[in-house]
Amino acid sequence: MGESRFTTPDLRTAPGAAVRATCRAGSLTGPTPGLARGFVQANLVIVPSDVAFDLLLFCQRNPKPCPLLDVTEPGDFEPKAVAPGADLRTDLPGYRVWRDGQLVDEPTDVRALWRSDLVSFVIGCSFTFEAALLDAGLPVRHIELGVNVPMYVTNLPCRSAGRFAGPLVVSMRPMTPAQAVAATRVCARFSRAHGTPVHFGDPAALGIADPTRPEFGDPVEVRRGEVPVYWACGVTPQAALMQAKLPFAITHKPGHMFLTDLRDVDLEGE
Amino acid sequence: MGESRFTTPDLRTAPGAAVRATCRAGSLTGPTPGLARGFVQANLVIVPSDVAFDLLLFCQRNPKPCPLLDVTEPGDFEPKAVAPGADLRTDLPGYRVWRDGQLVDEPTDVRALWRSDLVSFVIGCSFTFEAALLDAGLPVRHIELGVNVPMYVTNLPCRSAGRFAGPLVVSMRPMTPAQAVAATRVCARFSRAHGTPVHFGDPAALGIADPTRPEFGDPVEVRRGEVPVYWACGVTPQAALMQAKLPFAITHKPGHMFLTDLRDVDLEGE
Repeated sequence: MGESRFTTPDLRTAPGAAVRATCRAGSLTGPTPGLARGFVQANLVIVPSDVAFDLLLFCQRNPKPCPLLDVTEPGDFEPKAVAPGADLRTDLPGYRVWRDGQLVDEPTDVRALWRSDLVSFVIGCSFTFEAALLDAGLPVRHIELGVNVPMYVTNLPCRSAGRFAGPLVVSMRPMTPAQAVAATRVCARFSRAHGTPVHFGDPAALGIADPTRPEFGDPVEVRRGEVPVYWACGVTPQAALMQAKLPFAITHKPGHMFLTDLRDVDLEGE
Repeated sequence: MGESRFTTPDLRTAPGAAVRATCRAGSLTGPTPGLARGFVQANLVIVPSDVAFDLLLFCQRNPKPCPLLDVTEPGDFEPKAVAPGADLRTDLPGYRVWRDGQLVDEPTDVRALWRSDLVSFVIGCSFTFEAALLDAGLPVRHIELGVNVPMYVTNLPCRSAGRFAGPLVVSMRPMTPAQAVAATRVCARFSRAHGTPVHFGDPAALGIADPTRPEFGDPVEVRRGEVPVYWACGVTPQAALMQAKLPFAITHKPGHMFLTDLRDVDLEGE
């Protein structure tokens, strides 16, 4: 760490570019929540160009779970719209490599795997609206508890596109009805970060059999006077990707997001 | 016309599906403004699948001029998201056929030209927000005058994508500053119909040399106390298409739009 320009405490208030540079130097391999506060963190999905139209169409047809922030042209590893100068092969703290739908490796650099036909999808993430909820004085239970957000596979199908299909995956945050209304108002500003909730109340309406056993993340208590509030979740495209059993794909490692140059406020509005 | 279920006056208050059925029956070959009031009218661009990723990426990168309402899979002529049961080969009153970037035909039916590799793009149109402006008591000068909206090629480049590149094309409506502010508030609701203006005031800031000579449509007067207000225009993707000189493409004939089942209010919000 002697030569690193940044230490972990610095990265919390550093710009997104500083987090990327630290990843690129090999000095950050851990999760990104809490880093570069105010900068947009994003999901990453990388696929060969022969399925890129299908995946782009899947995202276009399912914008709430898959809000596109940037898509590169084949072979280009620089997401010019959201982080000019960045290198998607090195600038995340962790990656997952998939072959035939199976997780085969979790490297911290994918330069050796790069191909001229790879297309990268940078997709908005819930961290953006959670920061806005906290700023508005609204509770985000899993952050209070220091655990991962509970995520559930629903019985609502996404609109399919070519090889990509699958259920909507949702994240859940418990709130009182008044808080849920205020949260809806806040999240309506962030159409490029999952936007408004997709449901509140009865878990069975989404086909969730046991709310205490989320498919991903950790369970959190819904207290007296609260209802579960459900948002479309960025795990949805990853679930569709796994279901498609592509010969080759790369994603970010969960919680190890791509830091953009966008500010959270940039995801507001149109 | 004897057996037609619809006559021209009926179509003004008919649903979008009735306009489509009339086109399909060959009984409507004229322009669509004023028909199926309250239903969303849309631009149509059809290209072979080998350039569909590039065009989808161009639209994703330039959402203000190219707000996607629906994109079909290769060979599918039914836009399931916006008009289930519709047939994009027959349900518009007029088409344009392009070969090597040249306009070669203006048929009223493209079934004979259909190919299993064609991908259709249904793109939002300014009629949606103009109806909302009129509802809000705001002036839409070219409608008052019964002429076509003035459109200008700007010096602002779109973000390119593969084979598609070109300048932003804008439409112009004269308003007082207070009207322009109110119009911005109204149009902010319609992110899938060009959204808020891109500029107001000095035409030179957009590279417009002579405001009295629009590249498309008709000039309209900017009166004392008014400023020109500019919106991103759906002609932009057509300009990029022409510039790409594709071997084959089909578009709607100008003013001869595709009537969807969506209501104008459906284009509000997220």
